Amino acid sequence: MNLTKALLTLMTLTSLTACTTIPDASNHAGLLVIQEQGSFAVGGKVVSTPGTYDNNHPTAAGQTLHGDHLYAFYQVPQNSRPLPIVMLHGAYQSARSWETTSDGREGFQTIFLRRGFPVYLVDQPRRGRAGNSTVEAKIEPTPFDQLFFDQFRLGKWPSYFDNVQFDRKPETLDQFFRSVTPNTGPYDAGVISNAMAALFDRTGPGILFSHSQAGGPGWLAAIKSQNVKGIVALEPGSGFIFPEGELPPAMPSAAGALSPESVSLAEFKKLTRIPIVIYYGDNFPTEPTTERGQDNWRVRLAMAKRWVDAINKHGGDAQLVHLPEIGIRGNTHFLMSDLNNVQIADLVSRFLAEKHLD
Amino acid sequence: MNLTKALLTLMTLTSLTACTTIPDASNHAGLLVIQEQGSFAVGGKVVSTPGTYDNNHPTAAGQTLHGDHLYAFYQVPQNSRPLPIVMLHGAYQSARSWETTSDGREGFQTIFLRRGFPVYLVDQPRRGRAGNSTVEAKIEPTPFDQLFFDQFRLGKWPSYFDNVQFDRKPETLDQFFRSVTPNTGPYDAGVISNAMAALFDRTGPGILFSHSQAGGPGWLAAIKSQNVKGIVALEPGSGFIFPEGELPPAMPSAAGALSPESVSLAEFKKLTRIPIVIYYGDNFPTEPTTERGQDNWRVRLAMAKRWVDAINKHGGDAQLVHLPEIGIRGNTHFLMSDLNNVQIADLVSRFLAEKHLD
Repeated sequence: MNLTKALLTLMTLTSLTACTTIPDASNHAGLLVIQEQGSFAVGGKVVSTPGTYDNNHPTAAGQTLHGDHLYAFYQVPQNSRPLPIVMLHGAYQSARSWETTSDGREGFQTIFLRRGFPVYLVDQPRRGRAGNSTVEAKIEPTPFDQLFFDQFRLGKWPSYFDNVQFDRKPETLDQFFRSVTPNTGPYDAGVISNAMAALFDRTGPGILFSHSQAGGPGWLAAIKSQNVKGIVALEPGSGFIFPEGELPPAMPSAAGALSPESVSLAEFKKLTRIPIVIYYGDNFPTEPTTERGQDNWRVRLAMAKRWVDAINKHGGDAQLVHLPEIGIRGNTHFLMSDLNNVQIADLVSRFLAEKHLD
Repeated sequence: MNLTKALLTLMTLTSLTACTTIPDASNHAGLLVIQEQGSFAVGGKVVSTPGTYDNNHPTAAGQTLHGDHLYAFYQVPQNSRPLPIVMLHGAYQSARSWETTSDGREGFQTIFLRRGFPVYLVDQPRRGRAGNSTVEAKIEPTPFDQLFFDQFRLGKWPSYFDNVQFDRKPETLDQFFRSVTPNTGPYDAGVISNAMAALFDRTGPGILFSHSQAGGPGWLAAIKSQNVKGIVALEPGSGFIFPEGELPPAMPSAAGALSPESVSLAEFKKLTRIPIVIYYGDNFPTEPTTERGQDNWRVRLAMAKRWVDAINKHGGDAQLVHLPEIGIRGNTHFLMSDLNNVQIADLVSRFLAEKHLD
């Protein structure tokens, strides 16, 4: 009897401490058990300069340059789920977007590792550690902090929105601003989506999380690779593609006009094979306004609704969740690192479960 | 009896799979148990543009820019050793240098995690994910592959050295070339060492691993921060600092002259408080030669020997290990990712143990 009890106790302990992720209410203190981690480059091209290389008096002649690849860092937890998640950052950002939040909590990288997914974080071609570009660029230190504060919907500089899901300590804002990193070559959605398709060739079937500007290259990657089995798009901001002849009109805003982009119907229909969910946060104006930072998002939300309708009209499975409509308030443009990012991750987990992607 | 046997089996299983690092001879397949991981920016400055910010018609006026910080990704293993290791990459590189090797094996990041050290990987200011520079830069795609092949001592392009510790598969060389990433602002050892000192303020006492160009900023960081408790310098390539009035002459080579740099005696003497080891690999010429890639290192090795002598003359504890002299052959400039990188890590571990840094 005692032995049975000991056995049962031990079995309980084993199931608690065996090398799987140990759940923790705070989503922070549990141990993380990694089966494998590492990094690599994928995609890109090689540019050659004509001539003969002289080892001892080297010039460009006869030399090559490897560029336009992406960089990925991956971690596979023990007893992982079958489909990895690939996370692609937005404009002015790197894989840093998905790591520790500006106020020091775990971001989506570690949250979804804890939930058993292999996680791949990408620095897109011509950004971050994938900085080698085949096309030149000039980097001018551009003071954009206040514009970002407005455009990423922390508030209207220098005031935060009353309900903002962003920690107000000065050091948090400092970290937020320091997550910005420039393009090292011209932004090119084709180059990025080519590299992303090459990444999915390597990972096999997986799920794509995109943020902001990555929305567009994300759709293109799913067109280019059948291994993209689902997309979670956080506040897509550009590259809304429609079938030729079905483009909605451009949408003017205080931040400029947002124009849809055109692809063939055959390409567009590839996006109808997979489940897609789009999330947008709070503090969107309902009517046109002169507030530039917010009005920028009014038209993106409106365009995304048209986009979801187009996907579904063609037999697809897309949905748009505007968080305030389900009672979740105060989210900035960075849903994955907002104060309620675990709640957002829960929504995403539910979507993945419903679509049998987990 | 059956129950006892089951209990014992279960206990064995538990001890095998309980959440500690499971040692593995190949240094690859064992599980990695992480207590905490994340990333942050540290150091840097804020540049302000005069004027008043207009939220709805933003220009540079009245805006700020956060730049010149470094980016760090860290992992703390379970039951970690007391001193973390901070790894700083060299020229044209990022933290990628310390991750997976070009041929897909574990690099120093994961090897030293497995050995129980908290590991911090840095992208230095104006590189990689720390790309926001306060000074402008032009990025021109520069075909340097063949020059790197020579200068990083893989061989004399297109031939590998006979004994080279580098895998010869074409895809390995492709990964190697794609680890290159450009400066996004002017290289500045002062800016880098300031940020490194700020990082050591945050980590507390720790050990610095530097590679190549990072040698110089590494010495400066140790002068600026008393938290640098030891330095492991892999093939330092620039920034050899000597006390004023004690500079050796510049050393000409087929790759140009290598000049020592001057610091005050008081600053220099701060480097005599900590143990320092320098490692250089193989295929160094013993006499001046016209082979540019190799001759570059002949003078660096010679200058490093002078530097070690100067440190020790002033009461310090520095040593230089030229690997072929202890029978270790074929190492390239990238000791931490060469085919024998576990052997190199073993040497480093032995040094850390001897100096009570583990």
